[in-house]
Amino acid sequence: MTRPANRSLGLTQRKADAAHGSTRGGASAADRWLLSTIMAALPRCGFSAMLWDGTALGEQTGLRVLFRDRGALWRVARNPLVEFGDLYSLGRIEVEGDLVVLLERLYRAMATGRTKRRSAWWWLWHDQRPRAGSLNRARENIHHHYNLGNEFYRLWLDREAMQYTCAYYPAPGMTLEAAQRAKMDHVCRKLRLRPGQRVIEAGFGWGGFALHMARHYGVSVRAYNISSEQVRYAREWAARDGLADRVEFIEDDYRNIRGHCDAFVSVGMLEHVGVEHYAELGEVVDRCLAPNGFGLIHSIGRNAPGRMNGWIERRIFPGAYPPSLGEMMKIFEPLRFSVLDVENLRLHYAHTLRDWRARYTENLETVRRVYDRSFTRAWDLYLAGSIAAFTTGSLQLYQVLFARGTNNDLPANRSDLYR
Amino acid sequence: MTRPANRSLGLTQRKADAAHGSTRGGASAADRWLLSTIMAALPRCGFSAMLWDGTALGEQTGLRVLFRDRGALWRVARNPLVEFGDLYSLGRIEVEGDLVVLLERLYRAMATGRTKRRSAWWWLWHDQRPRAGSLNRARENIHHHYNLGNEFYRLWLDREAMQYTCAYYPAPGMTLEAAQRAKMDHVCRKLRLRPGQRVIEAGFGWGGFALHMARHYGVSVRAYNISSEQVRYAREWAARDGLADRVEFIEDDYRNIRGHCDAFVSVGMLEHVGVEHYAELGEVVDRCLAPNGFGLIHSIGRNAPGRMNGWIERRIFPGAYPPSLGEMMKIFEPLRFSVLDVENLRLHYAHTLRDWRARYTENLETVRRVYDRSFTRAWDLYLAGSIAAFTTGSLQLYQVLFARGTNNDLPANRSDLYR
Repeated sequence: MTRPANRSLGLTQRKADAAHGSTRGGASAADRWLLSTIMAALPRCGFSAMLWDGTALGEQTGLRVLFRDRGALWRVARNPLVEFGDLYSLGRIEVEGDLVVLLERLYRAMATGRTKRRSAWWWLWHDQRPRAGSLNRARENIHHHYNLGNEFYRLWLDREAMQYTCAYYPAPGMTLEAAQRAKMDHVCRKLRLRPGQRVIEAGFGWGGFALHMARHYGVSVRAYNISSEQVRYAREWAARDGLADRVEFIEDDYRNIRGHCDAFVSVGMLEHVGVEHYAELGEVVDRCLAPNGFGLIHSIGRNAPGRMNGWIERRIFPGAYPPSLGEMMKIFEPLRFSVLDVENLRLHYAHTLRDWRARYTENLETVRRVYDRSFTRAWDLYLAGSIAAFTTGSLQLYQVLFARGTNNDLPANRSDLYR
Repeated sequence: MTRPANRSLGLTQRKADAAHGSTRGGASAADRWLLSTIMAALPRCGFSAMLWDGTALGEQTGLRVLFRDRGALWRVARNPLVEFGDLYSLGRIEVEGDLVVLLERLYRAMATGRTKRRSAWWWLWHDQRPRAGSLNRARENIHHHYNLGNEFYRLWLDREAMQYTCAYYPAPGMTLEAAQRAKMDHVCRKLRLRPGQRVIEAGFGWGGFALHMARHYGVSVRAYNISSEQVRYAREWAARDGLADRVEFIEDDYRNIRGHCDAFVSVGMLEHVGVEHYAELGEVVDRCLAPNGFGLIHSIGRNAPGRMNGWIERRIFPGAYPPSLGEMMKIFEPLRFSVLDVENLRLHYAHTLRDWRARYTENLETVRRVYDRSFTRAWDLYLAGSIAAFTTGSLQLYQVLFARGTNNDLPANRSDLYR
């Protein structure tokens, strides 16, 4: 890894917190009251919480949240999602037992709290606003996440295609590499790609999928991305593999996509687009897609509209927003695109994330040479929390295949996807 | 057929029309102006129109609309969709050439007119309001359509299961009977039915699907319908086939569904529910469905919200409304149901309708013994127009499979549907 050492999330101890942190004495009556208020809002959560002086509440299940100091407790009460993440990253909150299981129980307890409206306090967990997706803001947001360093992602993504999106595990015991190949093939089959066709890809990551399409399906690809690190990486990769004449990697925003295509595909970009821009995305597709072409959008989503987890939105994925299917229809309905097929691959994403986290954990020593402790803990929390979000149904993964409303050159049925 | 003879749609010649109708002389300048206005709003429509005196406009393609009298012309101009249907039924408008092809061209020309906003006159084609779906109104609407007489539908639906919904043709050359069986099996496989499970069916037609599930999948079914003729028919059928102990046919509205089930299924009822009641339908499912159960809703829909064709809504399917996918999400999102799979079977419905129309045409003599000329022409127009609506993409057919958001007992993927 060639990035400068000691990169961090920019988390710092605040002065007041440091004072709190130094309060190593016993918990006060107010501290105990606050802890009991928090735990009362998490009915039957299946874990316990302990303060710095050993005061404990909740169920004895081997899963425990430890507040190391008074400041940590009071900050969590004020803005639970964001502060839990930051304080865990800083080591001022610790978790004993399996982090994923604890987060799953936390998600489920939060969902119960929300459904039953047991406590107005829970609205605090949903107080984050996604950032707007102007062109400049979009660039900043994307740079925040994807310019961390290609080498960092190489440590834990699949080694063949560098896919930072949900894989597809149609058979038991598949490796991450095989599952990412299966995902790419599944998308290509849904698009019914044929040799000689022109594909436009909106958001290409490190370029692995574009190269896969060109190599295995004989298509030419024009692919767009605004992360300069990824664009550079992808261009070198295409040149190395002798595919530069059939895959063009363009550093530009999806709104500036030009040209015509037989297939329009976007895997893992919609999360960064923002609902207010969905109609624009639909117009981009309308401008490009051949009369009998197909389009596919693959995106993290939700069962109902709701904001991104505040901490992930702030620290990991600025500007990210996972839409509901109803919200996704704002891409298609204004121009009367016809949705042909929607598949929800939620549990495949949990599987993918478990594979990523296992590799991340294996390579933690390498990561630590470049990134500070708060970063490495934050990233692990992000991966673990994402597993929990998919296993508890807080997040979904939608693949939406569509065509123009007037296209009658449709596959007879979906059996060809499973041959 | 045992129904009283001379049933009709209740269309009568109005006094003023009759006067117009008797005007057998030449077309006036005003008549010719009106005809040219109508045809100008249908750019490149691919057919011609002719007045009662031989005045003709449009393209010479072997397809022609004939206005038999002045009243017919002026009524069509006022409310095109409704009046075209009524006047065709009455024989005051005739069509030369293939009715389906002409209607397809009309649909496409209308869509072009709408997209290009060439003419304010086109808004007339969208002036019908669907009727509200109160319990009493729902009963009236359903009686209007389904109490026409079971024998009438037996003349042209499949002979095995009396399915008045889209069939599924996974292989070439399938009969209507085989395709309806394939549809029922496709739905049962999507629901992953297992012997011993309890199924609730909302809207059961003549009961063929409920009996199929009980017979071939070993489940017990509680099925609801508000058409008394259909309920009587279904109960007799269940008794005759020795399935009355495992299939209960209940004459009641979907809003009164009670009990618990492992699978909730509704094939072709949502069209009659009305968007304002979708959240209620979701609540019904939420009350009934087991934690790890599946639900499937099969419905005619649209690529974007829009009213039903006014004539069909008025004369054939009172209260019918085909929702967009975005509108369908109002069933699922309020209670965070998770949509697992959406399949659009639009062209399968066109195929189904062609099979129905062929049988209807074969049996026209039998129909004419009971129904008057305006009825038999109206029904043929309805079948032909529905083919055109599906082939031109004006209508869609969605199958939406869903589960509770917390259900992790999901099929690994969809390959089991295609084994």
